[in-house]
Amino acid sequence: MRATLMYGAGDVRVENVPDPTIQQPTDAVVRVLRSCVCGSDLWPYGAMPASEHGVRMGHEFLGVVEETGAEVSALTAGDLVVAPFVWSDNTCEFCREGLHTSCLHGGLWARDGIDGGQGEAVRVPQAQGTLVKLPVAEDSALLPSLLTLSDVFCTGHHCAVTAGVGPRTTVTVVGDGAVGLSAVLAAKRLGAEHIILMGRHKDRTDLGRDFGATDVVPERGEEGIERVRELTRGHGTHTVLECVGTLPALHMSIGAVRPGGTISRVGAPQYGEVPLGFPEFMNNITLTGGVAPARAYIEELLPDVLEGRIEPGRVFDHAVGLDEVPAGYRAMADREALKVLVKP
Amino acid sequence: MRATLMYGAGDVRVENVPDPTIQQPTDAVVRVLRSCVCGSDLWPYGAMPASEHGVRMGHEFLGVVEETGAEVSALTAGDLVVAPFVWSDNTCEFCREGLHTSCLHGGLWARDGIDGGQGEAVRVPQAQGTLVKLPVAEDSALLPSLLTLSDVFCTGHHCAVTAGVGPRTTVTVVGDGAVGLSAVLAAKRLGAEHIILMGRHKDRTDLGRDFGATDVVPERGEEGIERVRELTRGHGTHTVLECVGTLPALHMSIGAVRPGGTISRVGAPQYGEVPLGFPEFMNNITLTGGVAPARAYIEELLPDVLEGRIEPGRVFDHAVGLDEVPAGYRAMADREALKVLVKP
Repeated sequence: MRATLMYGAGDVRVENVPDPTIQQPTDAVVRVLRSCVCGSDLWPYGAMPASEHGVRMGHEFLGVVEETGAEVSALTAGDLVVAPFVWSDNTCEFCREGLHTSCLHGGLWARDGIDGGQGEAVRVPQAQGTLVKLPVAEDSALLPSLLTLSDVFCTGHHCAVTAGVGPRTTVTVVGDGAVGLSAVLAAKRLGAEHIILMGRHKDRTDLGRDFGATDVVPERGEEGIERVRELTRGHGTHTVLECVGTLPALHMSIGAVRPGGTISRVGAPQYGEVPLGFPEFMNNITLTGGVAPARAYIEELLPDVLEGRIEPGRVFDHAVGLDEVPAGYRAMADREALKVLVKP
Repeated sequence: MRATLMYGAGDVRVENVPDPTIQQPTDAVVRVLRSCVCGSDLWPYGAMPASEHGVRMGHEFLGVVEETGAEVSALTAGDLVVAPFVWSDNTCEFCREGLHTSCLHGGLWARDGIDGGQGEAVRVPQAQGTLVKLPVAEDSALLPSLLTLSDVFCTGHHCAVTAGVGPRTTVTVVGDGAVGLSAVLAAKRLGAEHIILMGRHKDRTDLGRDFGATDVVPERGEEGIERVRELTRGHGTHTVLECVGTLPALHMSIGAVRPGGTISRVGAPQYGEVPLGFPEFMNNITLTGGVAPARAYIEELLPDVLEGRIEPGRVFDHAVGLDEVPAGYRAMADREALKVLVKP
């Protein structure tokens, strides 16, 4: 089959790789219908050292079950399924607590002999725990929104949930990328009425307003913090959803949070130290969030997508075939595309 | 009156200062019955640059109301009261949310013209919001335990509450000082059944066991982390109560916390940066806690003290008169005393 590999910064290729087959009785093979490029794929795209063999790419996909192992009783060939961006058994003590990203028998896509999502097919380990059936047809117009349950919308939702967003909490979202916009939509869905979106790409912040942002702050740094404080009687917001992962974004989050408030971070941290010292201690600031256990949220969010109450798939503003994936990376890296859908 | 001043590291003196008087209609004057030395007083005691004029000391006290300003309707001369370690109006938006340490009209003792607790009397600003009446006599045997509601027990309680301690959470307490032991007692009171106390002073950890610790880990650093992991099937505990404030204590906390778990810190941070980078992000670790809004907890904790269900005053193992306060500091700094009670 054809699949995407990265050989170094800026070097993405689509190549022939071995067809996936059942290797464990808990496996399934899924033919990919839709995949996409993630903001986190852009970190290696910007900085990966050259590699002779390349690494497989992609961790978001939905598709059709083609074959199942002997222990996969709840899935049948032909089922349309979505895969969360971490595979898991859904039965261990961490999964039972909703922390599937720490599954004792789970792991990441596209490494250690596991296929990536940006290809024609995937061998899915722990298939019964990992995959969630979708009651739609292969040509459903809902596929883009359903695909966001794999990662980006669940990540925004995780950010809002761990921050404690609700009808009485004010919210700042830092970042107008696909995760930030998803966080706006998630906050709105959880009842937030005052959502400040920090971002300066008008087409993106316009979508953010559609998703529920009540204010947009294009300024950055101290100036951005000042603007958020002006909008909140000087205090900042109860919650800050940090959807970037850089130190400047974290600094803005700390500046924008209210005493007693919570910063939740879901952007993969490009830093090792967090500047939460004495002043933040005196203000009782909480830092939470982390990699989103998407699997824990899919069933809960699915009805809202199926019944059209939310349309998280609007973050896809660009679509490519499998052979055009390298161009898709380029478009996202150059900020010509917000998020790129892949149709193998 | 006589009061305690610090003139530099290791230089504590008891001197004559002006008697407190009513200055604002919201003031009260309280004659101090019991005060104490706080672990946080030891930070300047170890490092304060020499000062010509000295600074007033003490932020924990209980005493008898002697005089009240015109707007203090709920207190009368003769009332026995406890003061939380931050004064506050108890009516602003932060106080109403239980975050009295961020009161819009509050402040700290022993600075900016406000008396300290380690003296014969105190002018209490925002007296009606700050002081809580205690239904006991001046000679009550409960005074030491009631005094802990001023700071140390409420601080341990805040640590446990913000960490989310309950019957189903396992707990590690880092530090066997008075705050750490208070955190053990608070965790036990909140229903925790598995409480690991990290500390290596046997007399202190013995009191920790009395307070509810089920395991004691005297080892530190990587060895200490390893021991906690052995006690928790390799995973760490759901909550870690960081009651020291140093970077090594924080490192141990990060090593001892379970994926998806929470570190709560109540030791005043002696660091500016927190090492919560990519690995902790992948494990969904939360950092919470901060300076304890003691005022928010006093009414809730008071009945347990009055009815003898808890005895947090056992952290006082040493008592001095006002003139012996310098010796009290020395005893705590030399670890000869766990916590020093002051009887002016």
